[in-house]
Amino acid sequence: MSETTADIPAATHDGPPTPARRGAAHDSAFLRACRHEPVPHTPVWFMRQAGRSLPEYHKVREGIPMLESCMRPELVKEITLQPVRRHQVDAAIFFSDIVVPLKAIGIDVEIQPKVGPVIADPIRTFEDLKRLRPLEPDDVPYVTEAIGLLVDELGGTPLIGFAGAPYTLASYLVEGGPSKNHENTKAMMYGQPELWAALVDRLADITSAFLKVQIEAGASAVQLFDSWVGSLAPDDYRRSVMPASAKVFDSVAHYGVPRIHFGVGTGELLGLMGQAGADIVGVDWRVPLNVAAERVGPGKGLQGNLDPAVLFAPTKVVETKAREVLHAAQALGTSGHIFNLGHGVLPNMDPDALSRLVAFVHEASAR
Amino acid sequence: MSETTADIPAATHDGPPTPARRGAAHDSAFLRACRHEPVPHTPVWFMRQAGRSLPEYHKVREGIPMLESCMRPELVKEITLQPVRRHQVDAAIFFSDIVVPLKAIGIDVEIQPKVGPVIADPIRTFEDLKRLRPLEPDDVPYVTEAIGLLVDELGGTPLIGFAGAPYTLASYLVEGGPSKNHENTKAMMYGQPELWAALVDRLADITSAFLKVQIEAGASAVQLFDSWVGSLAPDDYRRSVMPASAKVFDSVAHYGVPRIHFGVGTGELLGLMGQAGADIVGVDWRVPLNVAAERVGPGKGLQGNLDPAVLFAPTKVVETKAREVLHAAQALGTSGHIFNLGHGVLPNMDPDALSRLVAFVHEASAR
Repeated sequence: MSETTADIPAATHDGPPTPARRGAAHDSAFLRACRHEPVPHTPVWFMRQAGRSLPEYHKVREGIPMLESCMRPELVKEITLQPVRRHQVDAAIFFSDIVVPLKAIGIDVEIQPKVGPVIADPIRTFEDLKRLRPLEPDDVPYVTEAIGLLVDELGGTPLIGFAGAPYTLASYLVEGGPSKNHENTKAMMYGQPELWAALVDRLADITSAFLKVQIEAGASAVQLFDSWVGSLAPDDYRRSVMPASAKVFDSVAHYGVPRIHFGVGTGELLGLMGQAGADIVGVDWRVPLNVAAERVGPGKGLQGNLDPAVLFAPTKVVETKAREVLHAAQALGTSGHIFNLGHGVLPNMDPDALSRLVAFVHEASAR
Repeated sequence: MSETTADIPAATHDGPPTPARRGAAHDSAFLRACRHEPVPHTPVWFMRQAGRSLPEYHKVREGIPMLESCMRPELVKEITLQPVRRHQVDAAIFFSDIVVPLKAIGIDVEIQPKVGPVIADPIRTFEDLKRLRPLEPDDVPYVTEAIGLLVDELGGTPLIGFAGAPYTLASYLVEGGPSKNHENTKAMMYGQPELWAALVDRLADITSAFLKVQIEAGASAVQLFDSWVGSLAPDDYRRSVMPASAKVFDSVAHYGVPRIHFGVGTGELLGLMGQAGADIVGVDWRVPLNVAAERVGPGKGLQGNLDPAVLFAPTKVVETKAREVLHAAQALGTSGHIFNLGHGVLPNMDPDALSRLVAFVHEASAR
C-alpha cells in the first residue's frame, strides 16, 4: 500500500491540500506499522480520543450543537489536534460523526445529547431510498477545508479519515435512531432483501464518496466504523452486509492508503471483515490478539485491544494489562500492530490515565 | 445426570412439593435432550417467554411492582404457566428476577420500569460486604410455595429454575444499576482483586442457596444467567469470575438436575462457561452452533440460537432461519440440543409468531 506515497517528499508549501501532503507522515510509526515495516515503537492512538473525555473539548464545543461543530473547519482542526497535543498519540483521527454525510445530502438528522443520532423520517420503502442521493465533494467543503488545515498543522503525524459503514448507517436510517436490537433493520434485511441490498448499496456509494474527499484532502489512512455490525451472525454478514462494505474498501483501494475496519462485538466476523478489504482489522477486548490473528489470517494488521474499562483501575494494573496486549502482539511476530483500546474512550475517563498509557506503550515497546 | 430422578415414579399425590415430584417430567423431550437421549422432537423454550411480550401478563401484573409480583406465589404460578399454555413450549421457566435473592436478604433494590434494577446503596468496600448475608430458605418461602404450585400444575412439563450469576449480580451491586461499560465493577475486579473475590464468593453462596431452594421445591433443571459476562475477556473471566460460577454449579451438582449456563456476547467464553460446570451451554445467535460445539467440547449440550430479531420477519423467513438452526444442530450428531432464541424474547414481539415457531420446530424436528 506504500507505492502512492513512497516517492513523494514531505510537503513544505502552503498551497491547497493535495495527496502529496501525506508525504510528511510517510515514515511515522503508525504508517510504518500499517505497512508491516519495522517501527521504533508500537504506534498508539485511541478511538474517540478527540472529544468527550477532554475538558478542553467541552470548552470549545460550549453552546455548539454536535453536527454544527463538525461543519466548522477551525473548530474541527482544534478538536482533532487536542488529543495529539495532550497525549502524544501517533495518529490523529478526523473529528466527525458517522451521520455527517447523511446530513450533507439533506437527510433530516440531529444528534440529541445522551441519545445519539435521531432521523426525523426513517427509511422504510423503495420510495424513501430516493432521499439518499449521491454525495458530491461540494456537499462537504468544510471537510476538505478542515483536513487541509489539519495536515498542515500535523506535519509528521498522520491523520486518519473516518466514516460509518453501510450496515451501521442503515440501522440508524431504518430504526430512526439508536437501537438495542435493530428489529426493524433486521426485519428489512431478512424480509425485504432487495430493498435492503439497494439501501446498503446507496450507503456504500455515499460512504465511498465521503472517504474519497478525506483522502484527496490529505488523510493518510481511513477507518471504517461499523459500530453495530456485531449484532449479526456470520452468515447474515456475508450475505447482506459484506458486499456493501467491500464496495467501500474497493472504491478507495487505488489511493494506496491503509484501510482500517472496526466494529465492537465482532469476534465471529473478524475474518470476513478482513476479507471485505481491510488492511488492518480492529479487534475489541473480548478476543485475544492471537485468536484474532488466526481468524483474520496472514497479511493483515491488527489494531487494539485493551479493555477500555481497565483505564479506571490503578496505573500499575493499566500497565500490566497494556503489557499483556503488547506481548500478545509481539508473539505474532509481525510489526503490523497498532495499539488501541478495544472500543472508544469513555466520557468519564481520566485524560491523564490516557496520556500515561501512551507514554507507557512507547517505552515498553521501544525497539 | 439422570441417576437421581431415573427411578422415581411420577408424583401423583397432593402433599408438599419434594424432589420426587420432578419424576413426572422425567421422560419429557426437554429432560431427555439434557441427558443426550433420543427425543421425539427437538425441545424448545424461550428465554423471557414469561412476561413482557404477552398481553395476559400485562393484565395480571397491572398495578403490581415487578419485585412484588415475584413474591406472590399464585401470581408467579399464573405468569410462569401463561407461555406454556399459549405456545406449547417444552419447558416452563420460573418467573423471577435475578435480584430477588438480594432483595430477600435485605438489600435495598427496586426494579424501575424502563431502567432495570436500581440499588440504593452500592457495594464498594469490605464493610459493604457485610450487607450480603447468607440466604436461608426461610427468606424466600414464596419461591418454595410457587414452585410447589407449579410442579403440581405442570405435570409432565419440566420447570427450569432460575438465578443470576455472581458476575452479573456483582455488576448491579457495584454500579448501583444497569451499566453499559461496567467501569466500577471492572475497576474493582482489576484494582482490588481481594475485595472482588470476596464479593463474588458471597454472591456464589447466595446464588447457590437460591437455586437449592428451587430444586428442593421441585425444579427439574436450573439456568444460571450471566447477562453481563460477555463484557469480559477470557483471561479475566478465567481469573476473576469462573471460580465463583464454578462454586455455584458445584453446590448443586449432587441433585443431578441439568445445569444450563447462558450469557449474551459470550463467543470467546463458551468453553470456559462449560468448564465452570454447566451441562448445557446457551449460545447466542452470533456464534454458529458448529463453532460453539468446537469451543464447548464434547459431552455438553447446546441451547439456542435463533436471532430474536428474526421473529420480526415474515413467517417464511422465520422458518428458513429456524431450519438452519435445526440443521446445524443435527449436523453435530447429538440429541443434546435445546432450541431457543439466542437471547430473550423482546417486549414488542408478536406472541403468535412465537407460537408458530414452537409448532414449526416440533414438526420440522419430529423423528
